[in-house]
Amino acid sequence: MSYSERSCWPDNVGILAIEVYFPSTYVDQAELEEYDGVSKGKYTIGLGQTGMGFCGDREDTNSLSLTVVQNLLEKNSTDPNQIGRLEVGTESILDKSKSVKTVLMQLFEQSGNSSIEGVDTINACYGSTQAFFNALDWVESSAWDGRLAIVVCADIAVYAAGNARPSGGAGAVAMLVGPNAPLVVERGMRFVHCAHAYDFYKPDLNSEYPVVDGKLSINCYLGALDKCYQGYKAQVHQKKKMTSNGTNSEGVGLEHFDYMVFHVPFSRLCQKSLARLMLNDFLHETCTEIQNEKYKDLSDYRNINLEQLADDPVLAKEVEKASLKCSQAAFEMKTEPSLLVSRNVGNMYTPSLYAALASVLVSKSLAELRGCRIGMFSYGSGLASAMFSFIISNTESPTAQKLFNNLADIPERLKTRTKVPPEEFVKILEIREKTHHLNNYTPWQRASDIANGAYCLLHVDEKYRRSYARRTSDGFVDFDGNCVIVAKPLVETAVPACQLY
Amino acid sequence: MSYSERSCWPDNVGILAIEVYFPSTYVDQAELEEYDGVSKGKYTIGLGQTGMGFCGDREDTNSLSLTVVQNLLEKNSTDPNQIGRLEVGTESILDKSKSVKTVLMQLFEQSGNSSIEGVDTINACYGSTQAFFNALDWVESSAWDGRLAIVVCADIAVYAAGNARPSGGAGAVAMLVGPNAPLVVERGMRFVHCAHAYDFYKPDLNSEYPVVDGKLSINCYLGALDKCYQGYKAQVHQKKKMTSNGTNSEGVGLEHFDYMVFHVPFSRLCQKSLARLMLNDFLHETCTEIQNEKYKDLSDYRNINLEQLADDPVLAKEVEKASLKCSQAAFEMKTEPSLLVSRNVGNMYTPSLYAALASVLVSKSLAELRGCRIGMFSYGSGLASAMFSFIISNTESPTAQKLFNNLADIPERLKTRTKVPPEEFVKILEIREKTHHLNNYTPWQRASDIANGAYCLLHVDEKYRRSYARRTSDGFVDFDGNCVIVAKPLVETAVPACQLY
Repeated sequence: MSYSERSCWPDNVGILAIEVYFPSTYVDQAELEEYDGVSKGKYTIGLGQTGMGFCGDREDTNSLSLTVVQNLLEKNSTDPNQIGRLEVGTESILDKSKSVKTVLMQLFEQSGNSSIEGVDTINACYGSTQAFFNALDWVESSAWDGRLAIVVCADIAVYAAGNARPSGGAGAVAMLVGPNAPLVVERGMRFVHCAHAYDFYKPDLNSEYPVVDGKLSINCYLGALDKCYQGYKAQVHQKKKMTSNGTNSEGVGLEHFDYMVFHVPFSRLCQKSLARLMLNDFLHETCTEIQNEKYKDLSDYRNINLEQLADDPVLAKEVEKASLKCSQAAFEMKTEPSLLVSRNVGNMYTPSLYAALASVLVSKSLAELRGCRIGMFSYGSGLASAMFSFIISNTESPTAQKLFNNLADIPERLKTRTKVPPEEFVKILEIREKTHHLNNYTPWQRASDIANGAYCLLHVDEKYRRSYARRTSDGFVDFDGNCVIVAKPLVETAVPACQLY
Repeated sequence: MSYSERSCWPDNVGILAIEVYFPSTYVDQAELEEYDGVSKGKYTIGLGQTGMGFCGDREDTNSLSLTVVQNLLEKNSTDPNQIGRLEVGTESILDKSKSVKTVLMQLFEQSGNSSIEGVDTINACYGSTQAFFNALDWVESSAWDGRLAIVVCADIAVYAAGNARPSGGAGAVAMLVGPNAPLVVERGMRFVHCAHAYDFYKPDLNSEYPVVDGKLSINCYLGALDKCYQGYKAQVHQKKKMTSNGTNSEGVGLEHFDYMVFHVPFSRLCQKSLARLMLNDFLHETCTEIQNEKYKDLSDYRNINLEQLADDPVLAKEVEKASLKCSQAAFEMKTEPSLLVSRNVGNMYTPSLYAALASVLVSKSLAELRGCRIGMFSYGSGLASAMFSFIISNTESPTAQKLFNNLADIPERLKTRTKVPPEEFVKILEIREKTHHLNNYTPWQRASDIANGAYCLLHVDEKYRRSYARRTSDGFVDFDGNCVIVAKPLVETAVPACQLY
């Protein structure tokens, strides 16, 4: 018997609570289409996006992470001394050496708890998933001391003016990880695929913008999806065989999942991804009758080879169209509910997958979700990817109720954001571009525009040290709870003041 | 009974093999003192350093990591398909998004093994230790599939011209991690201390140089050492009480360790660190007689407070002097053997602690080291720190023999390096400073100066994509084993050609 079969680890390890944060400002993608002078529907239908969240210069990876962790602790009445691990996944670093995790230690100073494992975990949008896996492993290891882990992911996704810009976004997610969780990670169901690729990367360290080969990146994403799905299915198959004493060896397909959640660079790609999984099922189906009935729309493509599709764009397009048709109903049921946050906020990079998970959880009642299996596909360019799954359990527990209740305001929070005209949005990105790496810098954005409960950047001093304060109903407070005065933006500068702020 | 007491994890999890790589060139610290016009002994005695390794522009974090992983696999005849986790700790990143781990996947392409967990783990010099902890946790988790993990650490430590420059260095370490290891990690003996500090950090992302507050950094280091030592001792105490049914509650002190290994920014700090541990033991000793006899040199300082020492430099100096005297014999026995690589190569950042561990292993025979306990103190600015320990076990096993045999050539490899005059060294750092972040770049360094078995940078193309080749006895080969032609350095450039290369 392998170790993975022994019941020596704590029960029901997974997610106990989730906190999702997105900026209070967004740009409308239809308005952006008009502003950019592109064909109508290019962003809204082609990318499947309705809004894009963005940050002014008062918010950065540190502030987003501070906000989401502090809100998680407060909303769940978690004593900071209960935390034994804290790990950050991000690809928007502000320092090559000092981790965001150490900045977050300021939230624990008052409690006196400095014995908290974990630092930052980096690989494009996949850093969050590796951080999550590390937290799970820790809970099952001999190093675990019974405390809980927090996994944090935060990113600001901005692109140089041009084609890629509408696929930006920003946000942060924090998750409380431990035993007796309502979102239980299925043991032994984790398949990883990694490779060397230059599909999307950030070699110009002084720029917030990535270098992107869009076509290559989508091929890498879909290729990784194939590998992970096949690997994950083999694991399920293996487990089924074992638990049914070798007699049950039926195939595993999409019906295995109630929901299928993908990393979301843009929403349309997730529809294509679900179609791709169905194409995989079809090609691995050995019964011709099933192939002809269940996958009628695909029956012309019985002999294609998935790996060759990347080299034959015409055939690929054709097959994609047929797969999309064939999987439309499955998409609406299994994946559409996961797109609420991403459609409205855009690509959050590392938090994207976990904001999609939260979107599923707000789409139905707790009772309706009881026992559901949620499949997760994580992708980070470069590349690293994984497929794994949750079972929604312990739904009667107060923890489960709280988890769901705390997420319930997401639709309302999305609606009450401030819509910013494209011309203002472009100005704000110009300010970020010119100032995000400066020392001796006081942000332009009015601190009063920061949402209640959120942290904001006060100042970057001559030695690049960053100071932050949190907006509360009592004003702006530092980490000891003392009120601070937020410096007004300077007027004398080469950077144009943005009217919005 | 807590989970940490159950015997559900594989036995003797730890290090199965170690590979250490350092550059083939170094500068002599005594010569550097003369060149810099500083007082004789400032670097050699004040820092305790004899040599400083450095890289030309053919080597970077990627190439160092490629070299050390490929050598580890070859020297241990490890089939790439045996590897299930690969994780990199570094603070010398070349990309904010694409991990070094994904670059290393090129070494696994031929084997067809792409299912390898782990990405990059970042926090100054501590990234390697968190990567190591993550690998240990993985082996004990339900996600473990019986394969081995590789933990890689690689850094190039360079400082702007001035005071800090002599504390540079460069190198890489790779470790094979799994069960039935000769270097067994003691379970439940891992104490972590983290905090927010701006002692050493790299906020100027386009520079290889850190921002350093030297005095603050040493105080942070020693403060973290106090916390970790006290936490670790409490864990040992707890375990002793448990295993002897509550009757054995005697104090734990330095005698607990046969060797005590520290992260080495410079060698002299490790002597001060061991002295600091003895000072801790002294202050926590409740028996006045022992205080007076065992710690005679310290008896004047019975009532000092460790935390206040940072604010009283005069007293701190006095106490340090007395502690150094009191601990001299212990230092020579327990810590001096760990300084072989660091004295000669300098600060390697993330690999530093593990090169110190390797130094202990080459200082004695396997038989002499049997059963020894090695204490480890890891520190990364920002800050994150930990204390943990190994027991040298299974010394009769072929794995143990191989581990030791593979390290045996370190003293010889140190001796056969090329000594470079300070004026050439300074020129080479100038070239790095001007070119390390460029695209469209072909390195200056003659590829023939690269050591056999090492990878070197061939070219950075217009999209910043980096290509590498390995020097073998058959010439330079790519990842498929095909010979490649290494472009000669260009002559037409603003950067002065370095005569050495």
